[in-house]
Amino acid sequence: MSRIVYVNGAYLPEHEARVSVFDRGFLFADGVYEVTSVLDGKLVDFEGHLTRLARSLNELGMPMPMDEAAWLAVHREMVARNEVHEGLVYLQVTRGSADRDFAYPAEDTPQTVVLFTQNKALAANAQAEAGLSVISLEDLRWGRRDIKTVQLLYPSMAKMQAKAEGADDAWMVQDGVVTEGTSNNAWIVKDGKLITRQLGHEILPGITRAAVMRLAQEAQMEVEERPFTIEEARNADEAFVTSATSFVMPVISVDGVALGNGTPGTLARRLREIYIDESRKAAI
Amino acid sequence: MSRIVYVNGAYLPEHEARVSVFDRGFLFADGVYEVTSVLDGKLVDFEGHLTRLARSLNELGMPMPMDEAAWLAVHREMVARNEVHEGLVYLQVTRGSADRDFAYPAEDTPQTVVLFTQNKALAANAQAEAGLSVISLEDLRWGRRDIKTVQLLYPSMAKMQAKAEGADDAWMVQDGVVTEGTSNNAWIVKDGKLITRQLGHEILPGITRAAVMRLAQEAQMEVEERPFTIEEARNADEAFVTSATSFVMPVISVDGVALGNGTPGTLARRLREIYIDESRKAAI
Repeated sequence: MSRIVYVNGAYLPEHEARVSVFDRGFLFADGVYEVTSVLDGKLVDFEGHLTRLARSLNELGMPMPMDEAAWLAVHREMVARNEVHEGLVYLQVTRGSADRDFAYPAEDTPQTVVLFTQNKALAANAQAEAGLSVISLEDLRWGRRDIKTVQLLYPSMAKMQAKAEGADDAWMVQDGVVTEGTSNNAWIVKDGKLITRQLGHEILPGITRAAVMRLAQEAQMEVEERPFTIEEARNADEAFVTSATSFVMPVISVDGVALGNGTPGTLARRLREIYIDESRKAAI
Repeated sequence: MSRIVYVNGAYLPEHEARVSVFDRGFLFADGVYEVTSVLDGKLVDFEGHLTRLARSLNELGMPMPMDEAAWLAVHREMVARNEVHEGLVYLQVTRGSADRDFAYPAEDTPQTVVLFTQNKALAANAQAEAGLSVISLEDLRWGRRDIKTVQLLYPSMAKMQAKAEGADDAWMVQDGVVTEGTSNNAWIVKDGKLITRQLGHEILPGITRAAVMRLAQEAQMEVEERPFTIEEARNADEAFVTSATSFVMPVISVDGVALGNGTPGTLARRLREIYIDESRKAAI
């Protein structure tokens, strides 16, 4: 089935879904995005993603192109038209098309809004049974990773580097401590305590990170927000990453060193179950 | 006149020049570019730009989509079709279109190649008579600025910040020293000596920077390649920037401090003349 893609108000077959070569998303990476997961045909943490979208746009001086009800309607229409039972809805907003100039175009330049879907097994993801192996790499990204922009070349390069070394993903390191994964937040578990880096300009404020933190605390788990080193990660009892589409994904090795008994950890598995259960209940 | 834009082999009216929303240039900023200036309808430093393009592509593991003769033919065709007497040819190459995934698509995925032109007065640019005022800003870009990628959001933000403060452009500072301007290399002049930062991952290896360095040495000017501070820049006798489309552009103030007598400096003006003369002679 050819997907239906949303481009500036139109629902188009994917091969007709195009943007101008003058789009600032294409020429300057001047755009932001969100990925919302779909379980049972319903949207997970939709409000969290919209709130973060509003923040990203605001940080870049871009207006919100439509209100929350309109975003919800478009997301639901995309899920329906593409018969997404489980998967994701991707949305991207750019500053629009204008002749190339580092200076922003006139404020009344129409923004570009694109949405597409992917069908994917998220809850019954075989990778969650196997766990991920991660390597560490220097974090070479720009200084405002809290804004969810499409400047994703380095995470993409890091992912390929991990694959080239026989691993699944990379954790990025700056000033001796882990920032985050290529497209997820990084967590370690030591002596029953969950440790994940505090928010700041260095990492993305993960929507799933926030949800898992809340659910962990409700389940009486202790959570500490602080930077940790790769050395600490290699000596952790277990580890995992969180993201909108991987939920809670166990990490079983760091730079070739197996964690615990080298299989997904107990707390990671429990948090994954809790997160999926709660998300199914709360999805809209 | 509507411009003619080149997209993957086709010469199209600009309103029909589009790329897929799945293009990795649009979704991941996974693309590189070059800008070649045009004087008297001829290409300036064409070989230098192609050599740098080859290097950028190689650093990202992308093949060169066409050979030098083909690039030259397309550039000349674009200049002819768009009747560019003076201006520029912009080219962009991306890793092509594929369903969204941080991992690179299959190696046989066709790359995207886009070219467009802009008509602009480059030699008789009024700004060169007035000179630029620049402010200093922290350099928040990624760690591989030597690769000419389309991850240009921060330079774009910096340009807007400069304008908001009543200046023309920004010089970016990292670890206490100037890296470069938003879209140019930065130079200062002190006691007759030209000073510009040495090459490395921190700055773009400017084609015009290299040409000006050669011409300055031929004119018996002393050139020193080393980092300099904003304090040094404020105390310089004169300053300028170099880029493919601004050539040698005098800087008359740094963070509100006028340099010399607050007008374009003698060496900057002389280098601009020499560069334009030599470029006219060597253009192809």
